[in-house]
Amino acid sequence: MDREDHTVYSFLMIGQSNMAGRGYVKDVKPIYDEHIKMLVNGRWQTMSEPINFDRPTSGIGLAASFAGAWRIKNENSQIGLIPCAEGGSSLDDWEVGGPLFKNAVFQTKLAQHISSLSGILWHQGENDSFGGRSGCYFDKLKNLVAAFRRELQAPDIPFIAGGLGDFLSSGRYGKYFTEYNSVNNALHQYAETTENSYFVAASDLTANADGLHFDAISQRKFGIRYFEAFFSQKNVLGPLNNENELINRIQDKPLTRTEKAALLEISFALGELSLADLEEQLSKLNALSS
Amino acid sequence: MDREDHTVYSFLMIGQSNMAGRGYVKDVKPIYDEHIKMLVNGRWQTMSEPINFDRPTSGIGLAASFAGAWRIKNENSQIGLIPCAEGGSSLDDWEVGGPLFKNAVFQTKLAQHISSLSGILWHQGENDSFGGRSGCYFDKLKNLVAAFRRELQAPDIPFIAGGLGDFLSSGRYGKYFTEYNSVNNALHQYAETTENSYFVAASDLTANADGLHFDAISQRKFGIRYFEAFFSQKNVLGPLNNENELINRIQDKPLTRTEKAALLEISFALGELSLADLEEQLSKLNALSS
Repeated sequence: MDREDHTVYSFLMIGQSNMAGRGYVKDVKPIYDEHIKMLVNGRWQTMSEPINFDRPTSGIGLAASFAGAWRIKNENSQIGLIPCAEGGSSLDDWEVGGPLFKNAVFQTKLAQHISSLSGILWHQGENDSFGGRSGCYFDKLKNLVAAFRRELQAPDIPFIAGGLGDFLSSGRYGKYFTEYNSVNNALHQYAETTENSYFVAASDLTANADGLHFDAISQRKFGIRYFEAFFSQKNVLGPLNNENELINRIQDKPLTRTEKAALLEISFALGELSLADLEEQLSKLNALSS
Repeated sequence: MDREDHTVYSFLMIGQSNMAGRGYVKDVKPIYDEHIKMLVNGRWQTMSEPINFDRPTSGIGLAASFAGAWRIKNENSQIGLIPCAEGGSSLDDWEVGGPLFKNAVFQTKLAQHISSLSGILWHQGENDSFGGRSGCYFDKLKNLVAAFRRELQAPDIPFIAGGLGDFLSSGRYGKYFTEYNSVNNALHQYAETTENSYFVAASDLTANADGLHFDAISQRKFGIRYFEAFFSQKNVLGPLNNENELINRIQDKPLTRTEKAALLEISFALGELSLADLEEQLSKLNALSS
């Protein structure tokens, strides 16, 4: 890997709430890495979670551990996430030319000025799992992804889609999601029949108390699986053996001095640390590394 | 006021961190009103704070109490906020055609499909308060606002700009902000010499421990002053007599049943409320109102 690689390799995040992320922040250790960026107002900022603020309930999603796994394979390079997922959105809400589509294309074009677009991460389908909607899922998704690839002038861009959780049918809203298996079949079939497209199963992943949103640890696992699909260019049809090991490795990565200082500044700006404590801790940090 | 008014009257939020908001959320009562919206992915969502997630330190800004004050005068209408402020940005970062400008124009155009653009709220200048930059502030701002008005095809759109806090020169970064008075003069002069532009003084407002960011209660007051400038079409050159009264009125507005239910759902989705407690409280809410 080239030590001089200043390119940011960017990934578009689209779909509904489980792509945005609703895992509880308190349930997992943070992922903080100055080489992992997120797009804010058309510019890269160091990623912090939540990444995709579509609702006040935004939390842990799969993109952070995806990025962490990417970084293990790309030690000297930077990854950038483009958060455009929208809670509660159906495939009709993602119609080509609608606001969600237009915003995602625009954000990605802004990112393309300052990065190399490397993939699209998709998780969506709960809102197409009832009322006969699943029957159109394959065709609508095919049309949508083709439109993204065309608009972004990225015809071969990898597209990674995760399945819906098996908990859906037994949760608070379970009676509504009668067609989630059909959606999963459509996602899988789409990956099987479309170039550079991969399906990631949600097998064994668990949910928050709502029975609707992946919990934080499951999102960490899901991100690892998404990365495995991207890296190996294959569908991932079940849990990986080393999911927990990789999660620990990503979350426990030693922080650089820059990262430690940035986290101290964030704590201070949030009012969690006094000015005196901040200055003392920054002095210690500088003394240790000088 | 027309009971049938379904128009959303929208306001663009641009500038740096004090427009995004860095007041501590815990320091003020929330403002929650189903008639106050924020733009997310090109669609309106009920506003919750923080509104402008440019950094993990985002918190209370002035737009929420601005919207609350607007609602007192517009009982049956809806207001929408378009959050595009970027922490640490200088006027050069806001250059016409740059990513901040392009994103703000794009977001506003998305909003214009579903609202009537009614004003631009601006707070910026800390990053132009040193190194001789303040000398160009007037000309750069004039050029920038003219470009926004042109791009948005809104030549007469009201532009409200707030002053920088007097605490700046004595805070943690005080030695850097030698020119904040010149920036305030430029903002005031701009308002005096440009149609539909108003200046709002930050007199008596206070800061977080960093001496840089307005604290939450000051942001509430500032928003009231911004609204007064917008409503009366005049500069606001000092504190208003009724700031605290208006803040209390906005924060203590009785919640509708829809708002109460939405807040319960948010608490549940955040894991603060069990499913059993949620369902019990929703039942009580429905019983009370049936």
